[in-house]
Amino acid sequence: MTGFVSIDRSEVTATVTLANPERMNALDTTMWRELEKAFVELSADDRLRCVVLRGAGDKAFAAGADVGEFATMRSNREQALAYARVTHAALQAVANCVHPVVARIHGACVGGGLEIASMCDMRICGESSRFGIPIKRLGLVVSYHELKSLIALVGSAAALEILLEGRVFGAAEALAKGLVNRVVPDAEVEPEVGAAVSRIVEGAPLVARWHKRFVRRLADPVPVTDDEMDECYTCFDTEDFRIGYRAFLDKRKAAFTGR
Amino acid sequence: MTGFVSIDRSEVTATVTLANPERMNALDTTMWRELEKAFVELSADDRLRCVVLRGAGDKAFAAGADVGEFATMRSNREQALAYARVTHAALQAVANCVHPVVARIHGACVGGGLEIASMCDMRICGESSRFGIPIKRLGLVVSYHELKSLIALVGSAAALEILLEGRVFGAAEALAKGLVNRVVPDAEVEPEVGAAVSRIVEGAPLVARWHKRFVRRLADPVPVTDDEMDECYTCFDTEDFRIGYRAFLDKRKAAFTGR
Amino acid sequence: MTGFVSIDRSEVTATVTLANPERMNALDTTMWRELEKAFVELSADDRLRCVVLRGAGDKAFAAGADVGEFATMRSNREQALAYARVTHAALQAVANCVHPVVARIHGACVGGGLEIASMCDMRICGESSRFGIPIKRLGLVVSYHELKSLIALVGSAAALEILLEGRVFGAAEALAKGLVNRVVPDAEVEPEVGAAVSRIVEGAPLVARWHKRFVRRLADPVPVTDDEMDECYTCFDTEDFRIGYRAFLDKRKAAFTGR
Repeated sequence: MTGFVSIDRSEVTATVTLANPERMNALDTTMWRELEKAFVELSADDRLRCVVLRGAGDKAFAAGADVGEFATMRSNREQALAYARVTHAALQAVANCVHPVVARIHGACVGGGLEIASMCDMRICGESSRFGIPIKRLGLVVSYHELKSLIALVGSAAALEILLEGRVFGAAEALAKGLVNRVVPDAEVEPEVGAAVSRIVEGAPLVARWHKRFVRRLADPVPVTDDEMDECYTCFDTEDFRIGYRAFLDKRKAAFTGR
Repeated sequence: MTGFVSIDRSEVTATVTLANPERMNALDTTMWRELEKAFVELSADDRLRCVVLRGAGDKAFAAGADVGEFATMRSNREQALAYARVTHAALQAVANCVHPVVARIHGACVGGGLEIASMCDMRICGESSRFGIPIKRLGLVVSYHELKSLIALVGSAAALEILLEGRVFGAAEALAKGLVNRVVPDAEVEPEVGAAVSRIVEGAPLVARWHKRFVRRLADPVPVTDDEMDECYTCFDTEDFRIGYRAFLDKRKAAFTGR
Repeated sequence: MTGFVSIDRSEVTATVTLANPERMNALDTTMWRELEKAFVELSADDRLRCVVLRGAGDKAFAAGADVGEFATMRSNREQALAYARVTHAALQAVANCVHPVVARIHGACVGGGLEIASMCDMRICGESSRFGIPIKRLGLVVSYHELKSLIALVGSAAALEILLEGRVFGAAEALAKGLVNRVVPDAEVEPEVGAAVSRIVEGAPLVARWHKRFVRRLADPVPVTDDEMDECYTCFDTEDFRIGYRAFLDKRKAAFTGR
């Protein structure tokens, strides 16, 4: 039995599940490709307002790349480069999804699993979750792309600590380091993710997409152009601004249309 | 009755107060312009060593831009651009003040109020303070300029969380996120700000200005030039270095002159 | 009696000790030069896997530059520039050491001592350690180079707070600010540093060096080139990858060779 990636749709949200339960949801090549495909597809769906990414079951978010494939698919530099193109495309698809993406984390979130979680916009985990990138045991390095995302979350010093020591550590330390936004008791991960998703989908959908894009844009040191600056005021010409403003004056919740 | 911005001067410090008590110190256009004017004026006053920025009363630092003005002054993209020039000039005046600026925060510090606080050099708040940028309810986005200051304080992940969820949260979370430097019991905000200001004004004034300017300079990814590097040693030719060094050897407090 | 810097070698680790016990291990010019020499030498030694940097005794890591030298060696701008070339070369030698460097911190870690610690890759301290850069009392500024390292650890806002207030603060605040990776009871600093070093030297040595270099490379806003990206996959052609992979499958610890 091999792993797979599934998509569950409701009206304005979707849940993507990484499933390879016998291997702590480790991703084989097929799963990396399905992960990319899922996020490219969901990103193009204009009706969506939020995507949740999770691991099947409650033992793991994902344990990283499937080590069983190393012998055949990553046994040398050339193979590793080809493999990295697949994993990189998947990670970029998660990062570039126009909708906010919330990682729902139970159990192990290590190696490539932590890299996937780092590409999401929010990370909520249970108290018994475990984190780490113990790649030094395998004699392997994290590539610049993935390292950049890790540093963006925890800073250079904590990123280096994680890589040099290679420890697997708990949720409290992950929170203190900035790896996750929020830690809750294991039983409350589901309701807390649900509450966060509700708060996100209640807001104006275009605003969420703009904010996600703007924050990611500012990670690039190239100065923002005047044209880009101008885009910050396009929201004043949307239907949702008129809806939001009227609802605010009436002291009721706005029902946004995404236009 | 409309809002206003007042300045209180003492010998080497000044307190700027945002006052619009009936609207949680929300800023209307007049107040934004007065805020800019106050900081341009204070920045030019060489006798000053520190500026405190606060809201009138203890219910709010500031609740942001006055929503009452939206209908007439921000009803579309063109108007919003003109309005943004006013608010942006005020925010830049706070950021560019040559003296250290300490935000003294009671109560609500949300939306544009939080943006103003983010431009200050230090933020000290009471335990019952509340923070957030719930702009997604209005269908509006934070512009790149203000977003950059927010990210500089809390990082990309927390900035995006604040904007996507739009929650209003408490002082402990603000501290954990890096939004504020220090949380104290409400009754101790005044003495704690006083103590911080004392520590600041006891130091060599030119040093404080250099440090403020250097830290802000390094937010720009353009490499520091040799000429800029050289400026780091100008302090050795100041009268205050000679005063400070002699006081250090004599184990007494230095009385700096600002020269 | 003058200060000195000593090196203690074991098989794959080295300990560098800053010793000037009568002056809280403050560094005079000789010590700055010896510090540079020690790290240049250790960096070139391919057998090493980790370096520990500490102060002699348990009263101080280091109290900064020796203030006794100010009158003769830093009394004006020209002298200060020459002196800065010496201290800067030492700080850079610590930062550029190819091996991971762990700062073992007891007691005072202030001024130049904190700058030295900031150049290390990890910082572990005891509960009674004290931190700060009270340079404003002397009428002096931190130069751009050192400021950059401080900001990389704690962010702009905390860096400015440290410099403007000039407070000397405890280990818990240092941890909250991100100045140190870990605080332990004073008696456990030695075993905890030992445990961290063990974890580091158990990993593949080339991987540790790559990770250190990659993390420092990303502090530079210049985009990573394709050639640099390619280097991320060189590890797949190392002997240590084959050793690490086999050990992983056999569920035993790998014995890396550094090739």
